Amino acid sequence: MLNQERLQRALEELEVLGVPQMLVYDPMAIYYFTGKRIDPMERLLVLYISKDKEPKLVLNRLFHCPEELGVEKVWVEDTTDTTEVLAALIDHDKPLGIDKDFPAKHLLPLIEAKAGSCFKNTSLAIDRVRSCKDEKEQQAMRESSLLNDTCMAEFKKRIREGVTEEQLAEEIKAIYRSHGATEIPFVIVAFGANAADPHHEPDNTVLKEGDCVLFDVGATANGYHSDMTRTFFFKKVDEKAREVYETVKAANEAAEKAVKPGMRFCDIDKTARELIEKAGYGPCFTHRLGHSIGIQVHEAGDVSAVNTDILKPGMTFSIEPGIYIPGEVGVRIEDLVLVTEHGCEVLNHAPKMLEIIGD
Amino acid sequence: MLNQERLQRALEELEVLGVPQMLVYDPMAIYYFTGKRIDPMERLLVLYISKDKEPKLVLNRLFHCPEELGVEKVWVEDTTDTTEVLAALIDHDKPLGIDKDFPAKHLLPLIEAKAGSCFKNTSLAIDRVRSCKDEKEQQAMRESSLLNDTCMAEFKKRIREGVTEEQLAEEIKAIYRSHGATEIPFVIVAFGANAADPHHEPDNTVLKEGDCVLFDVGATANGYHSDMTRTFFFKKVDEKAREVYETVKAANEAAEKAVKPGMRFCDIDKTARELIEKAGYGPCFTHRLGHSIGIQVHEAGDVSAVNTDILKPGMTFSIEPGIYIPGEVGVRIEDLVLVTEHGCEVLNHAPKMLEIIGD
Repeated sequence: MLNQERLQRALEELEVLGVPQMLVYDPMAIYYFTGKRIDPMERLLVLYISKDKEPKLVLNRLFHCPEELGVEKVWVEDTTDTTEVLAALIDHDKPLGIDKDFPAKHLLPLIEAKAGSCFKNTSLAIDRVRSCKDEKEQQAMRESSLLNDTCMAEFKKRIREGVTEEQLAEEIKAIYRSHGATEIPFVIVAFGANAADPHHEPDNTVLKEGDCVLFDVGATANGYHSDMTRTFFFKKVDEKAREVYETVKAANEAAEKAVKPGMRFCDIDKTARELIEKAGYGPCFTHRLGHSIGIQVHEAGDVSAVNTDILKPGMTFSIEPGIYIPGEVGVRIEDLVLVTEHGCEVLNHAPKMLEIIGD
Repeated sequence: MLNQERLQRALEELEVLGVPQMLVYDPMAIYYFTGKRIDPMERLLVLYISKDKEPKLVLNRLFHCPEELGVEKVWVEDTTDTTEVLAALIDHDKPLGIDKDFPAKHLLPLIEAKAGSCFKNTSLAIDRVRSCKDEKEQQAMRESSLLNDTCMAEFKKRIREGVTEEQLAEEIKAIYRSHGATEIPFVIVAFGANAADPHHEPDNTVLKEGDCVLFDVGATANGYHSDMTRTFFFKKVDEKAREVYETVKAANEAAEKAVKPGMRFCDIDKTARELIEKAGYGPCFTHRLGHSIGIQVHEAGDVSAVNTDILKPGMTFSIEPGIYIPGEVGVRIEDLVLVTEHGCEVLNHAPKMLEIIGD
């Protein structure tokens, strides 16, 4: 059902950009506004929004969408001249906003038809609205992270002699499913030196004594994503790995403590990065501190050195510092946080103290 | 390695459209030309081709691409002004071709910068080149369909009392993997009335006597896709289902017989459709006859009533008539074909006579 409050916020953000109307093309943004998830594949799905007119949803007859969505539907077919249909919705004498990924096959004919007085990429307006989760979304984020906490407690019990990364990855998926997860977009399992590659894909590496065991995992049962990393050790841990672990843990905790409205994303990144640099591992922390998350695993809003945007209540993102020593070890500790009025709520509660499994 | 012959064919097709240069944005088209598969996610990957200049590959430093590709690489970073980089490659006083999905975030700034004398969606040129598979691709298509034939012989052995669609789907994936398949993009298993939905997703439906068992499956071990449908019956078949089966089989065979250079895609669709209509099942054949296939499961070139393009040697597509009777039964029989100089080579060899399993 069309969420009027989200729509109003979007129209206000569009006005800030000087644009009164927009063709929303991103299917996830359309899901955000209407509550209806349609994967359009190569076919047309567009939500037209305007401060002067009622919204309209343009969709192909092949999509299954019998329900009332609180927005007028404009049905098209494969043979429809979609430029004509879209142009008929638009106020031609006013600027038209479009999504950053609005494709040339639709944009060039709309420009040719002079469907707007000018054309602007206004994804930023939608990104700004989506970045601040409303009450319902915040609750969904809490629930999915709770699912992740619960499952993580089971995942670590599967760490055992002779197991491979692939086996653990499969078992993790089965555990998620047994807890009702419907989407499991990523399961990273990395042993020992493999963990030094932040995007390692689980392979047939067999676990051996002294290895770190990195789980970077997330799932959803309610449309909102979770994402958490924990790093364990198998049977023993050497002194260097312990130092690496404690440094990453301190960086994770310091960054989470720093999160509050008014800070900038880059400030949070800096808090973790400086701590790791001081410990002498600066060059081994090779990625941004985190990313925004919600109905997509990666949403607009990097927690990185170059993002000077200000934190606002309702934002949800990951805090995931890591230290990667090629050929030796990799440690990453990741929680999701929700910015509150005066600080943040850490959405994950799985323990973070160093754990040696099977010793 | 940049395939010079494919590049030349593309430049010739571009010339037909009156465009001397193009920014190729589709990652699968870039794979087709360079042999290098990169999933750019939200980052920039573009192949610039021109009849007057050497090609250039613009790619992000984060992509792993150390190898020589026979094309100059232009590296960009997340902070690079990509419009400036792209504009520097382009002849500003000549028309610029772009892909149909070239996104607004790049297109609007290029238009603003007057990077081309005009901008045209020239995906058609690339589609035309890709539609005619060269020798190497034809061989790859034969191999992947052979893999599919081999596996289908095993799939049907798994049809048994008490099994669910989901179980069979999992077993099918395991069988594919045991034969070296690396990608398994779709596995449709549908029993009885479920088969009347052409896009049914395997669920926990249990097989029962008299059910049809529809397998629509494909995989690849070499980058080129296979796609085949066979429909079996469990223990017995009633007379109506038998008639439906024989009608679909006749339509499949008649259409395959009709394939030869000079015919139009719509003629092939018509051959199958008329046969089904004459048998009285016209309204129950609810989709196009087939689709082109290669490095993607669905490539440009529908075998449908509205596609008047002419068949040429080297084209590969599916022939998949079906009859769907809601609540009762669904039968589809699908092969891939390769257009030859004087007719076609049917790439699948799995038997098509009606088979009753477990009787």
